[in-house]
Amino acid sequence: MKRFWNILLAGLCCVFFAGLCYAQEATDFQPATTNVWGAEYPRVDSQGRVLLRVKAPDATKVRINFWSGPKAEMTKQSDGFWTFTTPPMVPGLHYYNFVVDGAEVSDTGSHAFFGGGKHASAVEVPEPGSTYYSIQDVPHGQVREVWYNSKVTGNWRHALVYLPPSYETQTRQRFPVLYLQHGGGEDETGWIRQGRANFILDNLIVAGKCKPMIIVMAYGYARRAGQTTPALTGPPAGSPERMRAMQEMTSAFADDVTQALIPFIDKTYRTIPDRDHRAMAGLSMGGMQTFQITLKNLDLFSYIGGFSGAGGGMGTSPLDLKTAFGGVLSDAAVFNKKVRLVWIGIGTKEPERMYQSVNAFHQTLEKAGIKHIYYESPGTDHEWQTWRRSLAEFAPRLFSK
Amino acid sequence: MKRFWNILLAGLCCVFFAGLCYAQEATDFQPATTNVWGAEYPRVDSQGRVLLRVKAPDATKVRINFWSGPKAEMTKQSDGFWTFTTPPMVPGLHYYNFVVDGAEVSDTGSHAFFGGGKHASAVEVPEPGSTYYSIQDVPHGQVREVWYNSKVTGNWRHALVYLPPSYETQTRQRFPVLYLQHGGGEDETGWIRQGRANFILDNLIVAGKCKPMIIVMAYGYARRAGQTTPALTGPPAGSPERMRAMQEMTSAFADDVTQALIPFIDKTYRTIPDRDHRAMAGLSMGGMQTFQITLKNLDLFSYIGGFSGAGGGMGTSPLDLKTAFGGVLSDAAVFNKKVRLVWIGIGTKEPERMYQSVNAFHQTLEKAGIKHIYYESPGTDHEWQTWRRSLAEFAPRLFSK
Repeated sequence: MKRFWNILLAGLCCVFFAGLCYAQEATDFQPATTNVWGAEYPRVDSQGRVLLRVKAPDATKVRINFWSGPKAEMTKQSDGFWTFTTPPMVPGLHYYNFVVDGAEVSDTGSHAFFGGGKHASAVEVPEPGSTYYSIQDVPHGQVREVWYNSKVTGNWRHALVYLPPSYETQTRQRFPVLYLQHGGGEDETGWIRQGRANFILDNLIVAGKCKPMIIVMAYGYARRAGQTTPALTGPPAGSPERMRAMQEMTSAFADDVTQALIPFIDKTYRTIPDRDHRAMAGLSMGGMQTFQITLKNLDLFSYIGGFSGAGGGMGTSPLDLKTAFGGVLSDAAVFNKKVRLVWIGIGTKEPERMYQSVNAFHQTLEKAGIKHIYYESPGTDHEWQTWRRSLAEFAPRLFSK
Repeated sequence: MKRFWNILLAGLCCVFFAGLCYAQEATDFQPATTNVWGAEYPRVDSQGRVLLRVKAPDATKVRINFWSGPKAEMTKQSDGFWTFTTPPMVPGLHYYNFVVDGAEVSDTGSHAFFGGGKHASAVEVPEPGSTYYSIQDVPHGQVREVWYNSKVTGNWRHALVYLPPSYETQTRQRFPVLYLQHGGGEDETGWIRQGRANFILDNLIVAGKCKPMIIVMAYGYARRAGQTTPALTGPPAGSPERMRAMQEMTSAFADDVTQALIPFIDKTYRTIPDRDHRAMAGLSMGGMQTFQITLKNLDLFSYIGGFSGAGGGMGTSPLDLKTAFGGVLSDAAVFNKKVRLVWIGIGTKEPERMYQSVNAFHQTLEKAGIKHIYYESPGTDHEWQTWRRSLAEFAPRLFSK
């Protein structure tokens, strides 16, 4: 009888400890929401860990390369697949690629997101309790694809246009416009695919937190008709050639925006076509382009936003406000009266150089008495979660005066 | 002196032969129009040859895999790049990928096109003199992205909608609708990105060759709310499990189209919401879905198109028209009176099984006296050039009675 109880006790202990072990090892990995139809990998668990897998039976070395996250060797399994599980990651969309025997490749299980000048893989790690960038059962704006013939670049250019839900129902109403730019290596699809700008606006609008507005997302690369300037991808980052290519491109893009895109948008949609109802913002390279374009065209824009990229370039030496941007920042009183909003945001975990550059610009404006909003996204890197939050903070301040 | 002339002659010969050699070797390779910004490879020459290049310095074997074209080993160069030049290829868009030490990967120089269940690479080989699918300086329709909440699938579904140029200018006019489906492994973006359906329609409409119409491009995969049917990618092609998964999916998709999508479209756009002004067509899997959906819902559709996929399934045994599709094809006179168009197309170079299947369906209809149009695309495979041509042949016959 005693033996029976011992066995029973042992059995219960086994069950108990097995339960403990199970609790420790238990994972609730699910295919990522960013996967293509039917793809089981990558998988994400409730702790934000990502389990990656790639088939490369004849490879000798496979690495995982998160652009803001782990870079590590993957482990070959007996079935020819290589796997890796990350530590818990910050919520948001994380770009990555594999490196198979020296070849940088995408994950065929992931949807492609244009970043780094190519169709990159990315995995969405959910932010618990966060719904501001999710699709909700609320009225949805439409995203439209348009093509406009630019005399500046001499070709047809593709742009995406978000129209707020009321654009279709209030057919006599006219709307203000936000021009919203992607970062370097991304394209005009980034703010919808990666950023979910349309859902962010749908949710803000239905909550009465921001004005219904049109958002125009243009392709931020441009060459003047007939020119063959470098493609940015050639010269190394930071080199004089790259800087010159960037300047030439920004100049061409500025003319494209002011001479081709804005007239096209104002002709095609029911906009309010004046500076009081026109904003521009952008992330990273798009932020720099925004300050270049808006500060030189204050007759066209009165709201300005820079997300992880602003007016100070990449250096930390203070900007000379007397001369920068044709001197428009030299008289704070005049500028503050003319410009309705300058908004600058940065993630607290961004690379030091980027953080310092944006922060230095903020300090310079602060000292000069130029009114602006400065925002820091807690715990996020140079990544889309910073920019989703930036848009959600920025948009409610637009067209409100 | 004689020596001088000999040397001169030798020199001239060299120049002459060098010229000859040059002429033979001369190529006019240019970066493909399907490349991402700044990518120099793949390159296409005027003969339709494609020069491919991929960096994989540590790989031991790299293959190029055109889905309808060369499959071959690439050659390693001293700089760590692997290259391959194809023979002249049929004009059109050609899907491909690389295989790096057993890993199937995309080309980062190419734009990504959703095909084969992943974001695949593709290269456009121009068709000399052909402009029907090019962007022209004509009025352009807009492509809109919409999300609709489907009670059938229990989630938000994404679709693209083409609105003809006059939709914006003729604001009291209502328009007929073509539901146009992608193939297996592709998605709702295929008809725009790969097929250029919007430019084909713009060009037909401006030439007065087809009626202005709305085109709705839906996501052709569906699971009923709460169900976890196989994802199609699991069971091998042709297996009973795969067939069952396809049937279940087509059934769920049929209900999604008839119960969720059509009501959403008719509510959202100025459609003419009756069977006389509603068409459906699709390519490959989308063609099979089209016949399944339209023939069982003739109260909703009166124009039917199958491009490289139709009502006969994949077998070549004659369809029993008495029983197939609930018997709607059993009485030719009744059917011919009710249905305004049955249109079937196939490429002459498609795999034998596909060609025979579509051709057998055509023969069966022919024998039964069921009116239809049968079209063969000369020299093209199971590929987008077949389907671009099919759309350009099909659309002018819509809504004309």
